[in-house]
Amino acid sequence: MSLAQGQSAQIQKVFGPDEVAAFAELSEDRNPIHLDPDFAAQTPFGGPIVHGILLSSLLSGLLGQHLPGEGTIYLGQTLKFVRPVLVGEEVTARVTVAQVREDKPIVTLVTEVLNSQGQPCVQGEAVVKV
Amino acid sequence: MSLAQGQSAQIQKVFGPDEVAAFAELSEDRNPIHLDPDFAAQTPFGGPIVHGILLSSLLSGLLGQHLPGEGTIYLGQTLKFVRPVLVGEEVTARVTVAQVREDKPIVTLVTEVLNSQGQPCVQGEAVVKV
Repeated sequence: MSLAQGQSAQIQKVFGPDEVAAFAELSEDRNPIHLDPDFAAQTPFGGPIVHGILLSSLLSGLLGQHLPGEGTIYLGQTLKFVRPVLVGEEVTARVTVAQVREDKPIVTLVTEVLNSQGQPCVQGEAVVKV
Repeated sequence: MSLAQGQSAQIQKVFGPDEVAAFAELSEDRNPIHLDPDFAAQTPFGGPIVHGILLSSLLSGLLGQHLPGEGTIYLGQTLKFVRPVLVGEEVTARVTVAQVREDKPIVTLVTEVLNSQGQPCVQGEAVVKV
């Protein structure tokens, strides 16, 4: 496959209460900020928020299935959690090719998860082997 | 709460086929390397491997519930996927306080996920606000 700087792939998803509860069990992360509407209502977020790592998990699927796609080996990821996402809010995850190395089969991609207003919620970079 | 360099918290977990399948649905990451034993047997891994982000999700729970614990705000995470974990293999996730800033309520922790032989599989750093 030929990869060029600027190529991108994206996916939309809504993480509702059921998805967040399922992820809390998998990750053993049962922080009430994600699960308890009454507790979360008393925080500055105003309601339950999606785990940052659950948002970020969409990036992994994009890399392995869409860009670069099958056979991709995930070497590393940086993540900055810059804005919360409320449970039930639609998000868009996007990966964009930033650098294709000439000397090695290593590709760097800008990775981001945006809320329904297009504001960045998770920002970072992925490094993959193709 | 008083936090000091070197303090650590850890958790053990086995991600079996059911957990990995559930995470594939949540993350939309249905790469056969995680889900298809026949496909995975033909790869250098020899069998299905756990999603790197699912392994990393244990770190989030440690930070929010154990160290620093409740009220922690997750600002960022770096992840290097240095060794695969086979589905069904027990892992240990560990967070260790690396730096407590004097001027701001910001703490940096070394984060790692180890396999059952104690070899690092995921390595990185978390930055949290306490």
